[in-house]
Amino acid sequence: MRILYELAGRDGRRFSPFCWRSRLALAHKGLDATCEPCRFTEKDKFAFSGQERLPVLMDGSKTIADSWAIACHLEDTYRDRPALFGGPTSRGLSRFVNDWTDTQLLPALSPCIIFDIPQWLDPEDEAYFRRTREARYGRTLEEMHAERSSHLAKLAPVLAPLRRLLTDQRWISGGGPAYSDYIVFGAFQWARCVSDVRLLEDDDPIRFWLTRLVERFDGLADSVPHFDS
Amino acid sequence: MRILYELAGRDGRRFSPFCWRSRLALAHKGLDATCEPCRFTEKDKFAFSGQERLPVLMDGSKTIADSWAIACHLEDTYRDRPALFGGPTSRGLSRFVNDWTDTQLLPALSPCIIFDIPQWLDPEDEAYFRRTREARYGRTLEEMHAERSSHLAKLAPVLAPLRRLLTDQRWISGGGPAYSDYIVFGAFQWARCVSDVRLLEDDDPIRFWLTRLVERFDGLADSVPHFDS
Repeated sequence: MRILYELAGRDGRRFSPFCWRSRLALAHKGLDATCEPCRFTEKDKFAFSGQERLPVLMDGSKTIADSWAIACHLEDTYRDRPALFGGPTSRGLSRFVNDWTDTQLLPALSPCIIFDIPQWLDPEDEAYFRRTREARYGRTLEEMHAERSSHLAKLAPVLAPLRRLLTDQRWISGGGPAYSDYIVFGAFQWARCVSDVRLLEDDDPIRFWLTRLVERFDGLADSVPHFDS
Repeated sequence: MRILYELAGRDGRRFSPFCWRSRLALAHKGLDATCEPCRFTEKDKFAFSGQERLPVLMDGSKTIADSWAIACHLEDTYRDRPALFGGPTSRGLSRFVNDWTDTQLLPALSPCIIFDIPQWLDPEDEAYFRRTREARYGRTLEEMHAERSSHLAKLAPVLAPLRRLLTDQRWISGGGPAYSDYIVFGAFQWARCVSDVRLLEDDDPIRFWLTRLVERFDGLADSVPHFDS
């Protein structure tokens, strides 16, 4: 019995980049899990996990919080299934991709799409989201929205290493898609689940890679409401 | 018979971040190579390789140009020696580290130290270096030097993913040092070979990692003139 506690908006919106990492990691391992949607203001639903952020995975009697810890748990517990890392070196390097995504990609992407998120939230969550994010950024969502073109311009150089990589190889993880691909994909999936903003040109190698990932696992990433921009 | 054609300044200065990748890759594999120093204006020395940039490795009858190609050649040719990557996934992910270093780390580091390079060059090289770099940046080396504190401030966020990674693990490559560590190390070795600028605080996890790498291979990175800042 496996339950993935996932951040959710209204109307089936699933936009958390961290929860997508775990969803795709489970799919990669071929493991079923019941998804338990939790709104921002339903932290009591997973308070048993001892912390306040999602995803949380219950795997039998075990509770694992944090997407990185979940990936390591799945890799170490289900060794006979397809590898998320494939060895200690790949695990170490995947952690770099994880840290790059968290410290560079997500902070650059966030101001480009944050204004579009509240429309997918219930009123209580909307108030919570606006209050916490406006405090974090020190400006209103509307102010950030007005500067979107400048945020998009700042995103471009952040994408440079990813673009160069995907010009030379089909997957971040080399031979085939693995956990590092899902880490970075989660960021773009976050964007495409909430916003129609156009992040990539038609001929961008990152776009081709995204399309390949969207097709994986019987189109899992397309099974939720999203935009095709 | 193995010859590594390396960029060199006067008085034994070896500062190319790309050449250091290959030097350390050879040391990791336990392979000897004669180092052939080439100045910026001695491109005729390695013109046989068909291109204008260093490093170039001659390995028996083979000529390999470009540090990434050299690493792949060494890994594929000397399979029984310690692994630089350790599998296709790690090779793919190391390429991301390579692209991140080339598109983010080196461009952020360069304006912090570029003013200090000409003093280690012979007069002909100095003129070549100044002309090409000032054209590339659209400003004089002196102008860049005057803005050093602002360049250092811009370097800080670029280092964020590396710092976070090395807070959690001892090596970029996970279980032990491997090619990804040498890629990133080459950038810092470049700086410490030409400049006394202080890039890292005493308690920075990146500094501890650098120290561990400096000690490798009987202190290879300390065997050339350098600063300890």
